[in-house]
Amino acid sequence: MSKLTVNKIGIIARYDSQEIIQETKKLIKFLENENIETTINKETAEKIGVKGTPIKQMTDCDLVITVGGDGTILRTFHELPQQIPVVGINKGEVGFLTDIEMDNYKKELKKIIKEFKVDKRTRLEVNINQGEKLPPATNEVVILTSEPAKMLKLRVLVDGKEVEKFGADGIIIATPTGSTAYSMSAGGPIVDPKVEAFLLVPIAPYKLSARSIVIPSKSNIEIELIRKGKHAKVIVDGQKTKKVEEGDIITFKEAENPALFVKVEGQDFYSKIKEKLM
Amino acid sequence: MSKLTVNKIGIIARYDSQEIIQETKKLIKFLENENIETTINKETAEKIGVKGTPIKQMTDCDLVITVGGDGTILRTFHELPQQIPVVGINKGEVGFLTDIEMDNYKKELKKIIKEFKVDKRTRLEVNINQGEKLPPATNEVVILTSEPAKMLKLRVLVDGKEVEKFGADGIIIATPTGSTAYSMSAGGPIVDPKVEAFLLVPIAPYKLSARSIVIPSKSNIEIELIRKGKHAKVIVDGQKTKKVEEGDIITFKEAENPALFVKVEGQDFYSKIKEKLM
Amino acid sequence: MSKLTVNKIGIIARYDSQEIIQETKKLIKFLENENIETTINKETAEKIGVKGTPIKQMTDCDLVITVGGDGTILRTFHELPQQIPVVGINKGEVGFLTDIEMDNYKKELKKIIKEFKVDKRTRLEVNINQGEKLPPATNEVVILTSEPAKMLKLRVLVDGKEVEKFGADGIIIATPTGSTAYSMSAGGPIVDPKVEAFLLVPIAPYKLSARSIVIPSKSNIEIELIRKGKHAKVIVDGQKTKKVEEGDIITFKEAENPALFVKVEGQDFYSKIKEKLM
Amino acid sequence: MSKLTVNKIGIIARYDSQEIIQETKKLIKFLENENIETTINKETAEKIGVKGTPIKQMTDCDLVITVGGDGTILRTFHELPQQIPVVGINKGEVGFLTDIEMDNYKKELKKIIKEFKVDKRTRLEVNINQGEKLPPATNEVVILTSEPAKMLKLRVLVDGKEVEKFGADGIIIATPTGSTAYSMSAGGPIVDPKVEAFLLVPIAPYKLSARSIVIPSKSNIEIELIRKGKHAKVIVDGQKTKKVEEGDIITFKEAENPALFVKVEGQDFYSKIKEKLM
Repeated sequence: MSKLTVNKIGIIARYDSQEIIQETKKLIKFLENENIETTINKETAEKIGVKGTPIKQMTDCDLVITVGGDGTILRTFHELPQQIPVVGINKGEVGFLTDIEMDNYKKELKKIIKEFKVDKRTRLEVNINQGEKLPPATNEVVILTSEPAKMLKLRVLVDGKEVEKFGADGIIIATPTGSTAYSMSAGGPIVDPKVEAFLLVPIAPYKLSARSIVIPSKSNIEIELIRKGKHAKVIVDGQKTKKVEEGDIITFKEAENPALFVKVEGQDFYSKIKEKLM
Repeated sequence: MSKLTVNKIGIIARYDSQEIIQETKKLIKFLENENIETTINKETAEKIGVKGTPIKQMTDCDLVITVGGDGTILRTFHELPQQIPVVGINKGEVGFLTDIEMDNYKKELKKIIKEFKVDKRTRLEVNINQGEKLPPATNEVVILTSEPAKMLKLRVLVDGKEVEKFGADGIIIATPTGSTAYSMSAGGPIVDPKVEAFLLVPIAPYKLSARSIVIPSKSNIEIELIRKGKHAKVIVDGQKTKKVEEGDIITFKEAENPALFVKVEGQDFYSKIKEKLM
Repeated sequence: MSKLTVNKIGIIARYDSQEIIQETKKLIKFLENENIETTINKETAEKIGVKGTPIKQMTDCDLVITVGGDGTILRTFHELPQQIPVVGINKGEVGFLTDIEMDNYKKELKKIIKEFKVDKRTRLEVNINQGEKLPPATNEVVILTSEPAKMLKLRVLVDGKEVEKFGADGIIIATPTGSTAYSMSAGGPIVDPKVEAFLLVPIAPYKLSARSIVIPSKSNIEIELIRKGKHAKVIVDGQKTKKVEEGDIITFKEAENPALFVKVEGQDFYSKIKEKLM
Repeated sequence: MSKLTVNKIGIIARYDSQEIIQETKKLIKFLENENIETTINKETAEKIGVKGTPIKQMTDCDLVITVGGDGTILRTFHELPQQIPVVGINKGEVGFLTDIEMDNYKKELKKIIKEFKVDKRTRLEVNINQGEKLPPATNEVVILTSEPAKMLKLRVLVDGKEVEKFGADGIIIATPTGSTAYSMSAGGPIVDPKVEAFLLVPIAPYKLSARSIVIPSKSNIEIELIRKGKHAKVIVDGQKTKKVEEGDIITFKEAENPALFVKVEGQDFYSKIKEKLM
């Protein structure tokens, strides 16, 4: 966690809410007053009436600020062209990834502009049939039946060894960061982000004995759809969906590059759990 | 559980498997040899090359035999025009509703033709916005998000009183008969069919405290979708799907008519649990 | 739920807290001012310096008021000589059985003295080896290993039929009233008190497939300890403990007499769940 | 996992079963025929009628063979004076730690005598009030109420930070090796032994939201008993029990020395899960 300073900031804001757009205008003004150069994602920039930059071209930013909820952060990580630290201003529901509240972002951003540390979070690389790559997952990848109430049959291999075969609506492969998101709803344990592991959590398994499994992040995970005629979806971070079907093999391993989060004081993992879950 | 005898039998068989069609032919021959009049569902009859009867017109049958899995029985109950007892010959995967194995149906059917008892199973009546009625559910009704990993917000009322409000992928409303089906995969308890109750089981609830609730079968259950812009599906017995959306209220109560199952010796509830689940 | 009026009230208060004893004195004065005759349980009476009555002799009371927590109510029901309605003033932690808060009992008691309705709650009759009877359980009976981390082997029969055999730390047999108490901690569902059923909930079962089972309250339940050399405890409502061992059979059925709770406005089952659990 | 060879073997066998003592005699003869020097634990040696060695003095053995179940192995690791590799011959119930079946131990032992590899399994060091040390746990440490159905109040700190405070019957702190033992019965996830982590699993928590937590094995864990007047037990590997009470703080960290298991072909972690749990 090296200390870093800031000259130019990329701003990525939800553009489907008039309120967020207004707040984003004020945020830009605030940053300009702090002598920070800014650039805004194209869609939001248009609504504000300024010139924007596609996220994929935000290569010269030292930092990215998102304005929205966890979804905005997750999408940002899918599109960022390189390893840029991200911090989220929360303007959504309960968020585990957005560390700054809208009400008092000025104080926090002043500190960050001066100097900040980075928290590296492991991501999942997803590959379909050894070919098509999906964006790396910060939270989780879900494989889910396309026909609700008609279960899939899944074969799970870890490092080439069959771990289990079971019928279920689907399965979640989560990072520790994702252990407090969808994985938790499906009954998975909370995993400290410092643990080098991924989580396998079955969704509505028919076999009563199916359990969550915690495996080393260095593992190669393969999941094979083995039931005749079944269709499924692969969903990355609840944002990106890809159709798969019988015989397809989806593989997972640790992504080369982690997600970089700006560390915000008082926002450590266990404080968030206590505040948001208990 | 009155004793009944049989003159005419309706046969309803899966028609997407050549093997099942062949077995159905033999079954018809067997029943004719036993001096039982038979009629077959239209689709299967066509494949066999005889004249069939739409299920909705099987009004003069004393008994219906299904050939297939649990799905075939569930669909049969959705379409049967009146209260006719049903028995299933299993030609699928593990089944909780099909009580006769394909290998030795002759012995069982000979007994049933002579005399049989009926097991009445409570069903759920489903109504959307006090208007459209769906077929009564023998197992369960599932309300499920149409966008996986984007949760619904549900408000549950029992007899007009709000019981809970929570975010989840969906909710299951199950009969005791359905407690060993999809409800169980989602973590619901097993409910003896003699208990006069329905089960409410959340699917992937975000609130950690969401629990299964067992409520009297005489209750009126209302489930309201309260999140802006969300779409969902209502799925009856995994067979019939209906789209719903924000603001829709789905109501449930005990159906006037139960599902009538022919009682087969040795196939009581707890024997099945031991055999199929443990 | 018939309406009843009150002439004489039995008071049963915890006597291990000086604060509760002071409050009980005030309660007695309040009731005397309302022209209600009172009698107090012997132990508390002694601390106050008046003449008391053993609970078992409170035969001429129209109503019993407890002062304490859920434990005080549960013990009261174990000892009351006959069917007397009980209402609890809460002076403990979160309580599901105590319906009146200490802060404003006067208003509630004035209403109750004039007229009240009774809520009948099913209890469990517990019998060891067809001989010794334990007090009827309002919440639950727990069978638990005496040597933590050394599991019991249990055989469960419902109406003479074996339902399951499994290794576990123990098992809970709960009433619907008890479904929000210890049973819930062990993973059991919430059961509406109007459902005529009991709950079987395994405690730390070794078999991953062991599930909660909801069975009709008219059932006869037998639980047999089948592992060599193992000792266990039978605990009724967390209050009364009895040792059992290998070969012992503990039987359960609906108690002849329910527990009678005074109905307090606004304190229905679902309001409590929302307030205390969600 | 270095390769090792064998000159002297310590044998530690259950001595409460005549059958195991007979088998142990044969095992000694078999090893002598293989030109291996043996020594037997004192208690079993007495029953056989030879001179034995206290386990604590088996310092010159290259290998220890246990005869019994998982309990025998766990006790062996508590008493072994130094880092000696252990392999278990199973003569008990389903075992996750004993890798050789009684029926065909000769073949396996011949291979091991020639050469074997060692699997190092992380253990937990347990300390009460920064003073008394208990034996290091191979599977888990359980903190459990001494009065069943009367819950403890626990405060959990990880690296000095409060993670949660909750009421429960107890808590399990497990190693990955222990994740398939008692922890699993209490609802914990399965953790691959290659993951450098410990598991915190609540036992019958009153708070519905209490979850299993996976934390780095480098963490310092503190658990404080904070309820007035409550007594509890600390149980190491189901073998060693120590009483604790209100105000006591039990601390946990990775033990300096891991448990050394002889690797037996075909007995990897996932094979065992498939064979024993699914």
